[in-house]
Amino acid sequence: AAANRARFEAAGVRVVNLLSSPGSGKTALLERLARDGGSRLAMAVVVGDLATDNDARRLRAAGVPAVQITTGQACHLEATMVQRGVHELAHAGTALADLDLLLIENVGNLVCPAAYDLGESLRVVLLSVTEGEDKPLKYPATFHSADLVLIGKIDLSEATGFDRVLARRNVERVAPNARILEVSARSGAGMEGGEQLL
Amino acid sequence: AAANRARFEAAGVRVVNLLSSPGSGKTALLERLARDGGSRLAMAVVVGDLATDNDARRLRAAGVPAVQITTGQACHLEATMVQRGVHELAHAGTALADLDLLLIENVGNLVCPAAYDLGESLRVVLLSVTEGEDKPLKYPATFHSADLVLIGKIDLSEATGFDRVLARRNVERVAPNARILEVSARSGAGMEGGEQLL
Repeated sequence: AAANRARFEAAGVRVVNLLSSPGSGKTALLERLARDGGSRLAMAVVVGDLATDNDARRLRAAGVPAVQITTGQACHLEATMVQRGVHELAHAGTALADLDLLLIENVGNLVCPAAYDLGESLRVVLLSVTEGEDKPLKYPATFHSADLVLIGKIDLSEATGFDRVLARRNVERVAPNARILEVSARSGAGMEGGEQLL
Repeated sequence: AAANRARFEAAGVRVVNLLSSPGSGKTALLERLARDGGSRLAMAVVVGDLATDNDARRLRAAGVPAVQITTGQACHLEATMVQRGVHELAHAGTALADLDLLLIENVGNLVCPAAYDLGESLRVVLLSVTEGEDKPLKYPATFHSADLVLIGKIDLSEATGFDRVLARRNVERVAPNARILEVSARSGAGMEGGEQLL
């Protein structure tokens, strides 16, 4: 992680480690960011999953260089996997020094990834409204480690009966210093100038 | 796990290990089951979370004996934790031999719990429509281990643009022998005579 961090700093690239449950909308968020912010920012994605390269293909279709790390049985990304991803990006023509923003989409899991520093400059935890307001209290280590908490799929707030005041209060209890933003990758709400989010 | 299984069989109790992502609606499903099936079946719940006893409190409010196991940093339940849960249930007046159904609500996680046999007679994996159709392919070990896959929150199918045909096809690819049922704890759809689900 320290080696990654030194390398990222030397290259002048901002690195985001994005954590969430499976199906919270990490990839959709990055697709929206690539489509809306892609013209202004040089970005690339390293995405982790146990299996499939679905997400990397989705992201490349959205116009962003992306490499897939498949972890097999491993429930989280580790610094060396990210190193490998960066190497693959470079091999495919996207050098670290040419990037403004490197986005690491972690394995969908609210427990294990929290314990692994990848050398990132910013840790973002995404909570979708469909998961319920109590998740920060039930997965405190992950939310506590966040610099920024995104409350996602806010277009589904009404359909799910989501209590945003309670959710924000729960985030603040375990992560008093984290910024909180509400977004929707589908409607684009809260994503204006999306790159400033990160 | 083998000791648990022998004990459960001797007591004549059916034991379900319920797995899903965080926020898929495991507790809501069990609340509905307790409310609708509770009069016909003697059931109890052992529920695992890293932190809080929210779920056990919700389940007790729904009229079902429930004990909370807090795992701290552990991303899954283990057989010995279930043993402790059963002991606590007995201590609180619910003996194993008096039960028809013991429900184990695992930690919300689509990776780690798959590898831990708890001595259950039936493994159920819950996938909510809000998580997307691709999750079986991305978390194959968990879905492969399922005897029954529940597709939950189907009341939100339309709002989320869920493709149920694709989702079922993806489940069938990794778990060809699993039964698949579509349910909604909120509307009660697919939950009629809910105890027969399990």
